[in-house]
Amino acid sequence: MIVPVMADIMNANNLLAEQNRKYFDEKSIYVVNLLASPGAGKTTFLEETIRRIKSNIPVAVIEGDLASDVDALRIEKLGVQVVQINTGKGCHLNAAMIQKSFESLKLETIHVIFIENVGNLVCPAGYKLGENVTVLLTSTTEGDDKILKYPPVFQMANLLIVNKIDLMPYVDYDLERLKKEFIRINPKTRLLSLSSKTGEGFDDWIDWLKNEIFVFRRKTLYENCNA
Amino acid sequence: MIVPVMADIMNANNLLAEQNRKYFDEKSIYVVNLLASPGAGKTTFLEETIRRIKSNIPVAVIEGDLASDVDALRIEKLGVQVVQINTGKGCHLNAAMIQKSFESLKLETIHVIFIENVGNLVCPAGYKLGENVTVLLTSTTEGDDKILKYPPVFQMANLLIVNKIDLMPYVDYDLERLKKEFIRINPKTRLLSLSSKTGEGFDDWIDWLKNEIFVFRRKTLYENCNA
Repeated sequence: MIVPVMADIMNANNLLAEQNRKYFDEKSIYVVNLLASPGAGKTTFLEETIRRIKSNIPVAVIEGDLASDVDALRIEKLGVQVVQINTGKGCHLNAAMIQKSFESLKLETIHVIFIENVGNLVCPAGYKLGENVTVLLTSTTEGDDKILKYPPVFQMANLLIVNKIDLMPYVDYDLERLKKEFIRINPKTRLLSLSSKTGEGFDDWIDWLKNEIFVFRRKTLYENCNA
Repeated sequence: MIVPVMADIMNANNLLAEQNRKYFDEKSIYVVNLLASPGAGKTTFLEETIRRIKSNIPVAVIEGDLASDVDALRIEKLGVQVVQINTGKGCHLNAAMIQKSFESLKLETIHVIFIENVGNLVCPAGYKLGENVTVLLTSTTEGDDKILKYPPVFQMANLLIVNKIDLMPYVDYDLERLKKEFIRINPKTRLLSLSSKTGEGFDDWIDWLKNEIFVFRRKTLYENCNA
């Protein structure tokens, strides 16, 4: 009984994700789906990212949590548009939730949307939202064995970022072990390491992101003009 | 369509969890369902717990992960029985998996089973396994706002343990804030703070655990004799 019902849900979600993608393409909006464990530092990472790009690149944020608006309030202080989605007992965002959030955002002038998914290394991996890329954050305090235990989410990531490298002196974390595992499981995808707190390594992420947005917008703006 | 199917799954799981509970009661086995985020330190916490009690209290462990047997191998080194369950893409253990694991364990002489659930602050909260208590581990490196964002799992916990207090000097963590939030959401449940690495605060947890096992076994051994 279960399998066909799940397949229907997934098909419906994929269809809505494609609609979202089309909507974003028409507006030339680059979309990042940010995944991580609870407490890996997603919101602090987003705050630092926004601080560094917002003067040149108009940003909006969609926050996903079971409950509360603490993350949205943090983002709001940076003076960018943000909408909070509360999933109740739901362990991931889905494409319908993203579509619903369009009602609360003025997207005409936006170049990039960051979607901070529910903190979870399992469920979000199965649900496309209409993103350009899935960026997976893992932190040094979580340990270097996460790829072995949660392979699907590491396989689907388009960029892996190791956060909290400032805490490496205080924890047993073997970054080289993680790199080797990641090359084995997802050989074409880049891995960056950084600290959102001290800023170490952060320039590489900003360069990567700016280049992605630039290439995407050049392509979609051209296509939209010639449509 | 979805709601009744989910209700059926939950009913079936609850029924199997009750069967497991009856099975454990008949053997006077105390069962701990250990929940946490990925990387909160569940396995290190279990290792230290087992080291401290195994000479007096016979222990077995059920490990849950999407993939790999790295945690089971760590536990096995301590010379106690362990079985690894791999859930594939599943974000939690369920009662049927626990029942299946009985085939691989010799439980006649065991007094306590630790079930290390899949690292996840959302899904495991809905699935009873036949445990006596749910112990929730949260770590200082995850941040002090987790209760606000993941309330259901904090509401259902029978004991909350704040792990990695040795790292508090290096992170922005307000333990008093967490305590206040926890009293608000789950006023009757105890909170302990400790470090599995340095051992600070660990005695309180061991005292709590030994007392729980003692009271439970006195009751069930009496009932089983008079049945």
